[in-house]
Parts: sequence; structure tokens; C-alpha cells
Amino acid sequence: MQLSRVRVVLVNTTHPGNIGGVARAMKNMGLGRLYLVEPKSFPDEQAIWRAASATDVLEQAVVVDSVEDAIADCHFVVGTSARSRSIPWPLLEPRECAERIGTASEHGEVAVLFGREDRGLTNEELMQCNLHLNIPTDEAYSSLNLAMAVQIVSYEILLASREPDSDSEGQWDTPFATAENMGRFYVHLEETLKDIGFLDPAAPRQLMTRLKRLYGRVQLDEMELNILRGILTETQKWAHRPGKQ
Amino acid sequence: MQLSRVRVVLVNTTHPGNIGGVARAMKNMGLGRLYLVEPKSFPDEQAIWRAASATDVLEQAVVVDSVEDAIADCHFVVGTSARSRSIPWPLLEPRECAERIGTASEHGEVAVLFGREDRGLTNEELMQCNLHLNIPTDEAYSSLNLAMAVQIVSYEILLASREPDSDSEGQWDTPFATAENMGRFYVHLEETLKDIGFLDPAAPRQLMTRLKRLYGRVQLDEMELNILRGILTETQKWAHRPGKQ
Repeated sequence: MQLSRVRVVLVNTTHPGNIGGVARAMKNMGLGRLYLVEPKSFPDEQAIWRAASATDVLEQAVVVDSVEDAIADCHFVVGTSARSRSIPWPLLEPRECAERIGTASEHGEVAVLFGREDRGLTNEELMQCNLHLNIPTDEAYSSLNLAMAVQIVSYEILLASREPDSDSEGQWDTPFATAENMGRFYVHLEETLKDIGFLDPAAPRQLMTRLKRLYGRVQLDEMELNILRGILTETQKWAHRPGKQ
Repeated sequence: MQLSRVRVVLVNTTHPGNIGGVARAMKNMGLGRLYLVEPKSFPDEQAIWRAASATDVLEQAVVVDSVEDAIADCHFVVGTSARSRSIPWPLLEPRECAERIGTASEHGEVAVLFGREDRGLTNEELMQCNLHLNIPTDEAYSSLNLAMAVQIVSYEILLASREPDSDSEGQWDTPFATAENMGRFYVHLEETLKDIGFLDPAAPRQLMTRLKRLYGRVQLDEMELNILRGILTETQKWAHRPGKQ
């Protein structure tokens, strides 16, 4: 994926606030190239306000007169489309589409088109696209705000651009406990529960099973294991302390 | 996935427009339950305007005084977090997190917390969560607009709701503990650790934080919680027993 080869094209945007929202959404996801086809009002204070720290994207935005001008040098063009059209077109969801954009960006310029707030892209415009993109929504209310639509697509593009990444739980600060140490912990736990009279060896029921399931499920790290062992040791001292009777 | 059991909780939102944007983002993705913890201005015309056709979500929004009130009956709580904290908590991206939300929603109420526009959630608030959620962004500009963040997470929740859900955790034998009962357990745990002299109130260090992370991560069921509470009660009896000296 070459993020710098991916442009977002907004066609006939009515609300300048949306243009600002789009700029921010793009920059948050590592995209910087915005094309505006005949925006109703641009530049505009509303756009600047909504762009927050993405005003650079607005400043570098390219304003053009037609979709043709916005995509002329592109090798791959995607058009967002809410409706299924009379002519069936290859229609992908953002995730698959982002993969295709990634591949295409290795070879040349890519454009993703977003239509008017009220009517989307025209059939003419959609027919200039290699692929159509549909963002899944709830059937009861499918009309996404323009900047939101750009946010979702940009998010998927960013995800597609990343290296296949090891799982996010992988950055724990402490090594996880070994099975051997877990075994010792369970012995200690069972002794302590007997010492305090919570576990009756004559009727253990499923107590240890449930506790092992619990602590096995959580995958304790070594520090957590030490804390729990420390609590057990302290508890045993109280149980072993000679009482007054 | 039971979308009707998933609530979005906005904490101390400053800009009412964002509340409206969130309502629309939710409804677009099939979510309808919005909780507002001490919003700066609500109801507000800006919210209504940005909500477009999702004013019903605003009308049904529940305004509460604290995060505790917003999540008391929840069995699974997710907190969005931009930063990595001093103590790493299980940190998932939206996709994996949405799967977990889906599973959890089969068993009870689920909350997804979004923090203040400028400062996110506090450490206190984050420690009440089972999991933390981080939305990937470009490093150069990671500050997502609040409604955009809700849009991305809601989108992933909608996608996860479509997957045939086949995970093995789906057949748990006991309901999971509510946030309210977990809160009571932590109070009991802290008292007991003081009673046995393991927790020094003058130098608590990160002990309770680490224990909350541990028990939050495992997602205790009600029976496990009862077992642990029983152990604490028994331990306290020993600590309170008059000694021989």
C-alpha cells in the first residue's frame, strides 16, 4: 500500500463542515490528498474549524471542475454507492475494497470517490469507476454522514496498509507465568483454603476446578502470580497464629 | 450479538454537536442506546441538528451523574483509550473488540465508554473496564473526533453482528458478574488485604490496580465471584480473631 498514492475525491459537497471533517478523518488515517469537485463553498471557516489539526490537508486540496479532471491520472477508481444500481457493478465492502486499493496503489494512482450529501454519485460518475464500494449499515437508517463514510473507508485503508501484525495483546509488560509456577500456585491456594477452613477435604466439591478454570482463563503474568502467592502466605500466617480459644 | 444490549457511554462530552454525531453514527450501525455522563450541554440544538434522522436516539438517551451509574448493570465494559498506560491493560483493536462485545452481549448488558474530547477517560474510569480499545490511527495525527471514534467502533460492531457466531465461550454455564458486583468485590478485597496487613494504606503502590486488571481481564462469572467473596470473608474472620500475643 502506498498511502501517498491514494486520493479522496469529494463530488459537489454542499456543507463545508463536511469537507473539514473529511480532512481530519483522512489525516487521522494517514491520507493527505483531497480533491474537491465543484464544492459549494471552499475555502470556508466551517471547514477549517472541523478540520482541527488537519488544515494542511485543506490547504493542499485540489479544486477541480469535474470528476474527469479529478481522476484523469488514476489507474484505479472506486466509487462509493449506497444503492444497488440498475446495472450491476462489482460491489465490495470497505475491507475487501481497501485490499484492492492497496494492491492498486503499488502500481499507480488511486482515487476513491464520495458523492453528494443528498444524492451520492450519479450513474454517469459511477460508470467511470473500476469498483463500487458499499458501506454496510443498518437497514433502518442507511444514510451515513459524508465525513463518517470517509472515516470508515480511510480506517480500512490504514488497516490494509499495515504489516500483518502480531496480536495486540502481545505487548504485555511482564512474562506470563509458566505452567510449573501455576501448578505451585494451585498447591499453595489449596493448602491455604484448607488452612482457613474454606475448603473441606472431605467435601471439596468443584471448588479447585472452578478456581483453576478462573486463573487458567486469565493467563496470569509472573508479577500477578507473585502478588497472589504473597496474599496466600500472609493469609496462612493468620490461620496458623495461635488463637485465644 | 445482541445489538440491543450494547450501550454507548459518553463521558463529560463538551460539544453537543458531537453527541448528535454519535447518535447518528450509532443508528446507522443499528445501535440505539446512548448514555451521557454529565454532558456539558444536553439537550441542545446542535446535537439535534447533527443527529439528522437519529433524534430518537437522543430522545431516549439516559443522562447520569457518574460512570458507575452508567455501567452498574453491565457484565462487560470496554473503555476506549488513546494512550498506552503505565500498567498495560488488555488492549484490543476495534475488530477483535467487537467480537468480544458480540460474545458478551449474548450473556448480558455491555457498555462501550468514550471519554472527553480533550483528555479521554481517566485512569480511574479505565480501571473499571474489562478491556481497553484502541483505534488505530496514523502516528502523525492520532486525535480522532469523538463521533468518528464511535462511528468506527459501531461499524465494527455491526460487522461482527453479521458473522455467524461460533465461539466456544458462548456456552458459559453461569451469568457474568455485573460491574456493580465487581465494584463491591474490589472494596471487599481491599479491606481484606488491609486486614491481613498485605496492603499498606500508607504505601498502596499499584497493588489494587494490578488486581483490578487481573480480575477485570478474566471476566468473572457470578459463581466465581461468590467463591472469591467467600474466601475473603473467611480470611477476615482469621484476621479479626483475637490473638494470644
